[in-house]
Amino acid sequence: MNTLKIIKIGGSIIDNEDAFHNFLDNFSKIVGAKILVHGGGKLATQLANEMNVEVKMIDGRRITDPQTLDIITMVYAGKINKNIVAKLQARQCNAVGFTGADGNSILAEKRPVKIIDYGFAGDILKVNTDTLQVLLKNDVTPVFCAITHDAKGQLLNTNADTIASELAIGFAKLYRTELFYCFEKQGVLKDLNDSDSVIEHINTGNYQSLKDQDIITGGMIPKLDNCFHAITNNVNRAYIGKAEMLSDETITFTTIQA
Amino acid sequence: MNTLKIIKIGGSIIDNEDAFHNFLDNFSKIVGAKILVHGGGKLATQLANEMNVEVKMIDGRRITDPQTLDIITMVYAGKINKNIVAKLQARQCNAVGFTGADGNSILAEKRPVKIIDYGFAGDILKVNTDTLQVLLKNDVTPVFCAITHDAKGQLLNTNADTIASELAIGFAKLYRTELFYCFEKQGVLKDLNDSDSVIEHINTGNYQSLKDQDIITGGMIPKLDNCFHAITNNVNRAYIGKAEMLSDETITFTTIQA
Repeated sequence: MNTLKIIKIGGSIIDNEDAFHNFLDNFSKIVGAKILVHGGGKLATQLANEMNVEVKMIDGRRITDPQTLDIITMVYAGKINKNIVAKLQARQCNAVGFTGADGNSILAEKRPVKIIDYGFAGDILKVNTDTLQVLLKNDVTPVFCAITHDAKGQLLNTNADTIASELAIGFAKLYRTELFYCFEKQGVLKDLNDSDSVIEHINTGNYQSLKDQDIITGGMIPKLDNCFHAITNNVNRAYIGKAEMLSDETITFTTIQA
Repeated sequence: MNTLKIIKIGGSIIDNEDAFHNFLDNFSKIVGAKILVHGGGKLATQLANEMNVEVKMIDGRRITDPQTLDIITMVYAGKINKNIVAKLQARQCNAVGFTGADGNSILAEKRPVKIIDYGFAGDILKVNTDTLQVLLKNDVTPVFCAITHDAKGQLLNTNADTIASELAIGFAKLYRTELFYCFEKQGVLKDLNDSDSVIEHINTGNYQSLKDQDIITGGMIPKLDNCFHAITNNVNRAYIGKAEMLSDETITFTTIQA
């Protein structure tokens, strides 16, 4: 079985020009099948402000009203995605930009309204590997933004971390899949103020106790939950760290295993 | 040799919801290999206004400064392209959105500055059929917006009619290619006030005299020049007319032949 690397980058890398180019350099050096998934960063909020569209948040989660969906589609699938594709082409990486609608690759459903109406937020139902696999076999690198569709003509806003883990799970029947979450830190830190305090191994055994001790808190919990969801569904390994981990094996980062 | 149909739709169809859905219905019914190329319509100008970005035009041609390129990338490659892809998926047409950067499919150069600096306007150098052909062979339909790249990381704004004709020429070695320009009228009209006055056949023989008599004027000249450029470069046939010509052979439209 060949290896497929699914790499997700967050907004903090996209928003910083040096970090962004450094990431693209490291990403394009990866040999073999790979898929990039990118977040949105501050650009969507910035455009919403320029267009005087109110950004609605409930409990830290964005409410995707029709105007917000338009903004996200323009910024994520347009500006960010196509600039990444062009910059990868300049690095001899043959990229093609994707939403979940392209190639019908990620089918989602509009999140049902219970107490909160999240608007056009999509929960993933199914990853369809057919078109993506045709491209991967021909050395093409799909680049995903955080948008899915419902197969009835509606685009939906979906969390980029979730897209990455579901793609990794979806491809586990065809490849030995590895999931990488790249961000601005060296890995999951024991002490947020000490960049050298990387927890090198997290597994089902120590994860709960790290949470109980409040060592792993906040936004790191859903990220690690995504990792554990992936590795308990046939994904081989998950990693969290800086972009350098993609091309430099001597660097320290966090490995998540069952 | 199989037939490949390259269909271009203009802004007047995109801006009108009924015409747009009617076009998508007709397009998705086409059997066999097909590529869609779409223009931008009024949405880019509308977004520029909302963002207070001045639209600069010289002699009716848009000047693509960096802010305008961003707007075009967001509207063309993001909002319009991805909504078309989602709506085609809903019609069981397996579409993937493209700019010329995706799959390195259309290489262009920034237009050299002579008297006028058009900014990030791209003149096409080469169509690369490799990635597109992999998709076409697997019944995937590429959907192009009017953006190309220079292979050095820069996106460029390129006329959609030209993209359609250059794609048709580029594929003429692999397919019997046919080029369709769909717009709001039945075809090239003898009398703009009479929708029944369609000129059914234009060839190199009568084209010059139709221009000399001021029957063919204005924006129709560059469109027909694109058609003649295509058919003198191995494209089999070019057509101008309403979307219905794609699925209904009894309808009247204009056919351009050598």
